[in-house]
Amino acid sequence: MEIIIDAMGGDNAPSEIVKGAAEAAKEGRTKLVLVGNKLRIEQCLHQCGADTRLFEIVHTDQVITMEDDPMSVVRGKKQSSLSEGLRLLKEGGDAFVSAGNTGALHAGSSLIVRTVKGVQRSAIATVLPFSRPILLMDSGANINVTAEYFVQWAIMGSLYMKNVLGVEAPEVGLLNNGTEDHKGTQIQIDAYRKLTEEPGLRFAGNVEGKELPFGPCDVLVTDGFTGNVTLKLIEGMSKFMFGLLKDMYTKNAVTKLSFLATKNELKQIKREFDASEYGGAPLLGLQKPVIKAHGSSDARALRNAIRQAEIFVSTGMTAQIAERMAEYGERKTVRTTAEDKSAESAGN
Amino acid sequence: MEIIIDAMGGDNAPSEIVKGAAEAAKEGRTKLVLVGNKLRIEQCLHQCGADTRLFEIVHTDQVITMEDDPMSVVRGKKQSSLSEGLRLLKEGGDAFVSAGNTGALHAGSSLIVRTVKGVQRSAIATVLPFSRPILLMDSGANINVTAEYFVQWAIMGSLYMKNVLGVEAPEVGLLNNGTEDHKGTQIQIDAYRKLTEEPGLRFAGNVEGKELPFGPCDVLVTDGFTGNVTLKLIEGMSKFMFGLLKDMYTKNAVTKLSFLATKNELKQIKREFDASEYGGAPLLGLQKPVIKAHGSSDARALRNAIRQAEIFVSTGMTAQIAERMAEYGERKTVRTTAEDKSAESAGN
Repeated sequence: MEIIIDAMGGDNAPSEIVKGAAEAAKEGRTKLVLVGNKLRIEQCLHQCGADTRLFEIVHTDQVITMEDDPMSVVRGKKQSSLSEGLRLLKEGGDAFVSAGNTGALHAGSSLIVRTVKGVQRSAIATVLPFSRPILLMDSGANINVTAEYFVQWAIMGSLYMKNVLGVEAPEVGLLNNGTEDHKGTQIQIDAYRKLTEEPGLRFAGNVEGKELPFGPCDVLVTDGFTGNVTLKLIEGMSKFMFGLLKDMYTKNAVTKLSFLATKNELKQIKREFDASEYGGAPLLGLQKPVIKAHGSSDARALRNAIRQAEIFVSTGMTAQIAERMAEYGERKTVRTTAEDKSAESAGN
Repeated sequence: MEIIIDAMGGDNAPSEIVKGAAEAAKEGRTKLVLVGNKLRIEQCLHQCGADTRLFEIVHTDQVITMEDDPMSVVRGKKQSSLSEGLRLLKEGGDAFVSAGNTGALHAGSSLIVRTVKGVQRSAIATVLPFSRPILLMDSGANINVTAEYFVQWAIMGSLYMKNVLGVEAPEVGLLNNGTEDHKGTQIQIDAYRKLTEEPGLRFAGNVEGKELPFGPCDVLVTDGFTGNVTLKLIEGMSKFMFGLLKDMYTKNAVTKLSFLATKNELKQIKREFDASEYGGAPLLGLQKPVIKAHGSSDARALRNAIRQAEIFVSTGMTAQIAERMAEYGERKTVRTTAEDKSAESAGN
């Protein structure tokens, strides 16, 4: 297996990215290709005492920053580590991991790696780190959506939760502003019906914001706008609540003492909220796996993302998605033909 | 001042509603009209030892439940406490308070009380109870929106925060999936421009989900779908985090002891998250004030909602909204005429 890594993407690149790759390399299962500034990558490898011979390094000069336009990946910065990594993936690699610019990674993946036949849009799927983890799709890439996308994402998300996170029969929820089937915009109303009708899906109905932390489903479909607000709000609320607790515990000697008694439990709670435990966010619907690691990834987060890419590849996720999407496409054709016929006979 | 109260709306109606009204009546500033089942209201008044002569009771038989369709307020259940309360408001009351069905209250208000001239849609404005409180508009009534609504809500929300919560120069934020001005759907992109151009507004730009708990603005405009998901997610996350803490503290003797040391601080944190401190959610843009109290309101929450209605009335909010909307309408007419002229000259 060959996994390609964008050594220059993310807040802590290249040092933490390279360090994470070095840790993954120790496990020795996978050939790792590091893409980026060769000199800096080699320096980082030396710093963490890694054997440079374990890696292939592909040199690139350009770096796409968080401020760059998504389209720069195929226009202004075609020689960036992100663009080159995606091309290497297209030409023969098995998976690509990047902690870089999400928009650029999504745009570049769609244009260079391309989607599986029948998939209208690939989506960024992020695990919400609750005690019952929820795969949120889309978490920011597709702002304008159709009900059809939601159904496709539900299919792909269910496969992912089964194969990569080991959920036996994943339940799908539709994020909405109420539980009744007439809630939401026309897109949610149509999606509710389509999700109900789709064979092979376990549709759990509409899910409200207040239910998310309490495990309402395994896959949650929504548009990228709402998904992004949701994801970031959960992040902000966790940070805020832990901040309040910190203030509380550092107030005086008694509260400081009290902290000692609950320190381990608090750490445990904090760890539960650590999304990097689940690696990165897979882009689902592409011809080859692309994993978006968090922008602030440290070595451990990156190693987890690489491990996740390995599972993605070894479980044959992409082939399964292709198979299910082919089935889905056939059924749709049959349905449309039947509808045409019934429309014809109604016209007679 | 005459405030009309839907005695039958909410999970704890009529007992807690009547009790809250009785507490407000003790302050003696306002004439309170209780609408609902007369016998039950009188029983509740007796139970809390209130003087029935302090109230006017208007009898109605029907009650709109949380399950009823919003339009039932003017169709199936025209004789409900909610419908009758809104009619009494229209005919001469100064404000209406209800803890009942939000959708029915919003629909009924628009149809019976009607919006201020120039206001395209009234919005439900909810205070997010952070240390810098944020007025979230719309929090669930208007699912399909235009950029124009956002500007009108920003104007009305700013007036409310100034008059009712005493914020000197309120800042307005636009909920979005990024800070750059090109983020969001076309509605957000247009709203960003319009909000920047609108004189008299302090526009703070786009606000991301993760910023909300840290006080990015005083008024946050968004569509009712995203607003509803946001509001409920904050509710759910708070509940979840306090649940985790409770589990932690009840784990063993040491943690239980530790709880005693931080009990007061924890209570304080919990109180900060108590939205009922801010009364209910005002419906902004109507010809007379309507306050939606939380469905689970107890007597204290209802008394706060009544107090809020008093401030709404005494600060002359509705007249101020009408004045600002008239200005806004004039400016729009001037702008449109100027645009027409420049289009004409461009055509020559």
